[in-house]
Amino acid sequence: MTDASLEEIPTDECYRLLATQEIGRLGVNAEHHPLIFPVNFALDGTTIVIRTRAGTKLAAAEHANVTFEVDEIDRRTRSGWSVLVRGQAEEVGGEHRADLVARTHATGVEPWAPGDAGHWLRLIPHDVTGRRIVPGELPPAVDPRAYL
Amino acid sequence: MTDASLEEIPTDECYRLLATQEIGRLGVNAEHHPLIFPVNFALDGTTIVIRTRAGTKLAAAEHANVTFEVDEIDRRTRSGWSVLVRGQAEEVGGEHRADLVARTHATGVEPWAPGDAGHWLRLIPHDVTGRRIVPGELPPAVDPRAYL
Repeated sequence: MTDASLEEIPTDECYRLLATQEIGRLGVNAEHHPLIFPVNFALDGTTIVIRTRAGTKLAAAEHANVTFEVDEIDRRTRSGWSVLVRGQAEEVGGEHRADLVARTHATGVEPWAPGDAGHWLRLIPHDVTGRRIVPGELPPAVDPRAYL
Repeated sequence: MTDASLEEIPTDECYRLLATQEIGRLGVNAEHHPLIFPVNFALDGTTIVIRTRAGTKLAAAEHANVTFEVDEIDRRTRSGWSVLVRGQAEEVGGEHRADLVARTHATGVEPWAPGDAGHWLRLIPHDVTGRRIVPGELPPAVDPRAYL
């Protein structure tokens, strides 16, 4: 039996893993706390696109340092991976070129939560890191010494 | 067919949901960003107990405003819930009463990640909020008008 190990995930693999998910967690500083909001997202290249309504998330994210976390956890094998993006968020609006607005809308991200999600945020990564817990090798179901 | 709806989760139910999970996401302010770290946890009453090694998480969490998020997402029905705890974290050590240290250790929280997780953090909630997306009613599999 070997122990579990912790591996760093290379950048390319981080982006590939990001693309396997449709829910991530946006981290923004607001109300004196590092708030964490699960959100639907889509990718435009390496840019994370989020739709939201007016509110805490949007006000706190605009032109601020934000983070975006995705993970996948396997309770059975006590393993999993997580990817953390650090970046800047900005709302896409009238000041942007029409092609950027069109590309943003073309991601087609559709929030599950009902309500008016009329605001589109782009989160431009400036750093991405990831870690994976690789499960240890479990002992064989039959002890080979039983045959000795 | 009805649309999905968004419900606030009462405090009692938030704590009940917290207890159904063994991985949550700790939010701490560090390195000019609201960093998000998935961690194993256990509960001592309503206090969240985390074990960690020395490093960014521990240094940033100690006596600081932190958050702790748990969620459960169902991609098939495009629904889920999330609970966000706001609180203060403190490392449990020599300055604490022996019974508090004993209760903290008795939670038996065991990190999946390998390495020296010799530091125990208690996160004392001062606020907990939760939201649930209730899926809309799907259209019946057979259109009843087919029988008219």
